[in-house]
Amino acid sequence: MTNKDARTPASVQDEKSEEAGKSIGWHKAYIEGTRPDLRVPVRQVHLTNGQSVTLYDTSGPYTDPLVDTDVRRGLSPLRENWIIARGDTEEYAGRPVRPEDDGIKHTSPRGGLRNLDAVFPGRPRQPRRGREGQAVTQLAYARRGEITPEMEYVAIRENVAPEVVRDEIAAGRAVLPANVNHPEIEPMIIGKRFLVKVNANIGNSAVTSSIEEEVEKMTWATRWGADTVMDLSTGRNIHTTREWVLRNSPVPIGTVPLYQALEKVDGRAEELTWEIYKDTVIEQAEQGVDYMTVHAGVRLAYVPLTANRKTGIVSRGGSIMAAWCLAHHKESFLYENFEELCEILAAYDVTYSLGDGLRPGSIADANDEAQFAELRTLGELNRIAKRFNVQTMIEGPGHVPMHKIKENIDLQQEICDEAPFYTLGPLTTDVAPAYDHITSGIGAAMIAWWGTAMLCYVTPKEHLGLPNRDDVKTGVITYKIAAHAADLAKGHPGAQEWDDALSDARFEFRWEDQFNLALDPDTAREFHDETLPAEPAKTAHFCSMCGPKFCSMKISQDIRREHGGTRTEIEEGMALKSKEFAASGNRVYLPIAD
Amino acid sequence: MTNKDARTPASVQDEKSEEAGKSIGWHKAYIEGTRPDLRVPVRQVHLTNGQSVTLYDTSGPYTDPLVDTDVRRGLSPLRENWIIARGDTEEYAGRPVRPEDDGIKHTSPRGGLRNLDAVFPGRPRQPRRGREGQAVTQLAYARRGEITPEMEYVAIRENVAPEVVRDEIAAGRAVLPANVNHPEIEPMIIGKRFLVKVNANIGNSAVTSSIEEEVEKMTWATRWGADTVMDLSTGRNIHTTREWVLRNSPVPIGTVPLYQALEKVDGRAEELTWEIYKDTVIEQAEQGVDYMTVHAGVRLAYVPLTANRKTGIVSRGGSIMAAWCLAHHKESFLYENFEELCEILAAYDVTYSLGDGLRPGSIADANDEAQFAELRTLGELNRIAKRFNVQTMIEGPGHVPMHKIKENIDLQQEICDEAPFYTLGPLTTDVAPAYDHITSGIGAAMIAWWGTAMLCYVTPKEHLGLPNRDDVKTGVITYKIAAHAADLAKGHPGAQEWDDALSDARFEFRWEDQFNLALDPDTAREFHDETLPAEPAKTAHFCSMCGPKFCSMKISQDIRREHGGTRTEIEEGMALKSKEFAASGNRVYLPIAD
Repeated sequence: MTNKDARTPASVQDEKSEEAGKSIGWHKAYIEGTRPDLRVPVRQVHLTNGQSVTLYDTSGPYTDPLVDTDVRRGLSPLRENWIIARGDTEEYAGRPVRPEDDGIKHTSPRGGLRNLDAVFPGRPRQPRRGREGQAVTQLAYARRGEITPEMEYVAIRENVAPEVVRDEIAAGRAVLPANVNHPEIEPMIIGKRFLVKVNANIGNSAVTSSIEEEVEKMTWATRWGADTVMDLSTGRNIHTTREWVLRNSPVPIGTVPLYQALEKVDGRAEELTWEIYKDTVIEQAEQGVDYMTVHAGVRLAYVPLTANRKTGIVSRGGSIMAAWCLAHHKESFLYENFEELCEILAAYDVTYSLGDGLRPGSIADANDEAQFAELRTLGELNRIAKRFNVQTMIEGPGHVPMHKIKENIDLQQEICDEAPFYTLGPLTTDVAPAYDHITSGIGAAMIAWWGTAMLCYVTPKEHLGLPNRDDVKTGVITYKIAAHAADLAKGHPGAQEWDDALSDARFEFRWEDQFNLALDPDTAREFHDETLPAEPAKTAHFCSMCGPKFCSMKISQDIRREHGGTRTEIEEGMALKSKEFAASGNRVYLPIAD
Repeated sequence: MTNKDARTPASVQDEKSEEAGKSIGWHKAYIEGTRPDLRVPVRQVHLTNGQSVTLYDTSGPYTDPLVDTDVRRGLSPLRENWIIARGDTEEYAGRPVRPEDDGIKHTSPRGGLRNLDAVFPGRPRQPRRGREGQAVTQLAYARRGEITPEMEYVAIRENVAPEVVRDEIAAGRAVLPANVNHPEIEPMIIGKRFLVKVNANIGNSAVTSSIEEEVEKMTWATRWGADTVMDLSTGRNIHTTREWVLRNSPVPIGTVPLYQALEKVDGRAEELTWEIYKDTVIEQAEQGVDYMTVHAGVRLAYVPLTANRKTGIVSRGGSIMAAWCLAHHKESFLYENFEELCEILAAYDVTYSLGDGLRPGSIADANDEAQFAELRTLGELNRIAKRFNVQTMIEGPGHVPMHKIKENIDLQQEICDEAPFYTLGPLTTDVAPAYDHITSGIGAAMIAWWGTAMLCYVTPKEHLGLPNRDDVKTGVITYKIAAHAADLAKGHPGAQEWDDALSDARFEFRWEDQFNLALDPDTAREFHDETLPAEPAKTAHFCSMCGPKFCSMKISQDIRREHGGTRTEIEEGMALKSKEFAASGNRVYLPIAD
């Protein structure tokens, strides 16, 4: 099950691809590790001054013109040999897929037909799991001192030593989500010691959207930089949608199994049981879901703490579990069965994303008793998960004004033994529906600077509707900005090189380089061309903002040219050259007719 | 020269306007002060639950259906009687307007004709200035213990005691920019003790744009919340454009006189003189410019400090002054003549905005020696300005990574005796051209939280081209978000009421109220309607994001309904009610067919 393209020597492929890419200013390149099947993709930007800049790349094989992708076949299972070679997993028959998994009742032949049409046509496969209840997790390997190919892969991606990756995972400060049933992913790591990551949510809902749209949204989101994707589908075809998304995703996929479990009981929260939930988790683990949000911290005793809130419980999972707890007046079945859940997740290397079901849904509710009571429980669950060698991250809010943000990350790090924090925003004000990518991008940048490892994006449609293609892109770009701003503020090695390359291009009026280095080259180019569309303007030493006479960079360059390149030269030469400068007259401006 | 509408009693006008406004969910109302001609406009939002919310309003008479505005006539001179009543100013013949003021050379009859066509047709007026070199500034009045009508006006706007306004101005911690020749403005205040303000830049350039467009951009920017507008026009018709903008602007107008002075010497920086500059300042002060950016801190000795920078000098004014200093090898004529400049500004109550000509233009250059050397000089100039009773604010950067932002405001406050800081962003990364409203909105929110009084907006076109109407709106909304997020974080009294009102509307599914309370009601409504356009959806207890079954707020509401309203009720009733809840079954969901 190897991809023929993957066997092409990296150097040859790079040459061909480089040739093809030069006209568009960048090409997909690969950095080879210690084995030929370990090739880490990068975005190589070719500058007009002959230099090049290497950028992190999340877009998968789709942006490699030499790889032939087909959504009906799925991606090549890059990690399969690595997993098999470890010898600690086995294939097995697996749980039979039932119509109910797609929300189809036996009374609904129409729905059944739709399901058969949509079934994923790619390679037949049996699920895989750890032998004899073994923990086959990257955490278990790291604790044993092993450096897996996955760890080496992310070390190259992050430009750090493999030992750093191993040690951060072993300490529980980072996770490498990689289900043994999702061999298609390009491994990535989430931890405060590494680049800040961005998650994009996709998912149909009962109201709208289709399978094709969701797969398309996933590839679109990763093209713009999403590091992981959560499939939050509800309603019909939930199992089949997930299969298509997983088989075509180069990034880890997260889910909230509770949503599907609720579908199986026709939306009646009180009819949920541990058995139905567990069956759903196994179903999804066999498909290859890499991390799962589990709202096991919503305990019965915490529900009353939300009674005086302005916006109650705003997490879907949190409100479902709260309704269940109240209906039965019993402790949460997720909390009660958490150890058994750990055993299941360990057998597939599914990573926990311990959900913050009681996160605040408004500025007024931020940092309240309910929220922090749940956080303390998440700390307790984190320690249990680690006993079972399950990789774990902790979800965070939500809606938090700026002055209350730092307390969130500080408390989380303390209570959860520095497990990676994974926050939604936070939104720093509630007054701007339609702009919540921005209200939350502000909070996201700040909390990431202070140590949050992954940011869940928010699109302009948040609180108003389902994101379309443009919204997904805007959400991802906004969050890549927040993440990179945090990388800079944390002093992440190499982060500033990207800014420096763009600043140099700006100062030297290399417009094409500015576009190609931009997070969104298309829009940057389009905006420039709106006012100065002609081709010569791409090399002009000014732009439409100030025009040639008022271009400070131009004047600044001329000063440097007239007075020498370095400070000492300028200081020494200043008096001497002032006369020459006067004589040169208009030389501070371009000789362009006004 | 009074507006007939302004004489309509406030109560009558409110009633009529309220009637007209109810259908659109809000109306323009006025709060009357201690005198009938002191009426502070507010945006009164009417909620469907019978309550109303009062919001700060910058949109001027244009949003009052009872005021008849005409750009050819200009706005009613609201402050004229207040200024005259003080008896410390006089009208005088003023400086004759010359074709060169509009960038028209005697050799250019074509340009001359255009100028005559465009001349502002409104009321003829003579300029006004302080008698016998008197300082007729709000600072001078405040120091004498006076509470002017302007101070009372902003006290009502900010919901604080007039004494607070007076004391903050007297201490130099706030400015109230209000040129005696700009009686049309609705007074506003800039200081860390008050709501964070937002400036929007407009201005034609040599390359594009027209007078009409600039006036339109000004009214458009204030409609969305711009508190001041800077007219950064260069090129032709610069004087006439400014006249149109001033006569029609309800907010203070700022300029950079150096731009026009440079036009007068055909763009040859080395030909600039103190006389030409001074003449330009008087020209603009007579027109009514409320605050002026003056780059007097760019001293000869600092220019070499920029030699090793990645992006040199990026301020237009800064680069012009640096070129002048080097060409003559002399100290800046702005620095040398600063005291005389103070006397001029004091006679019109023009506020200084001491420009940061050496601000960093890239992440690499942030917080460097050149920048902070200039800041120390601005501190010195601030103290001189105060001696002359000139109101003063200090401009700040620029491009600064998050971890270096706080040092900027802390140093500025220390060095400049807490004078209001007025920053451009700062941009927290350089890798996202076309999204610099967001890269800078992040920095703007943070620096405003830490004490910056006014934020200069950045539009999506920054570094790429001139902003159009949509860009201006996006820039203003983004910065209103940053400003309001900072107001919340600073605990500004009343700031959270707005968020709370919107959160309540959200929790109670009052969609129309959410739209009307939003910073941008139009886009919020449009986004909602994209997925759920039907009218019933406006009152639906769910939205397209989760559909009816997964709506956490709905579940949360039902929990509250089932288990009583308060925490005690829930705790007491929980056990008892759990059986009833089970019996009620589907009651946690809306009875809507799936």
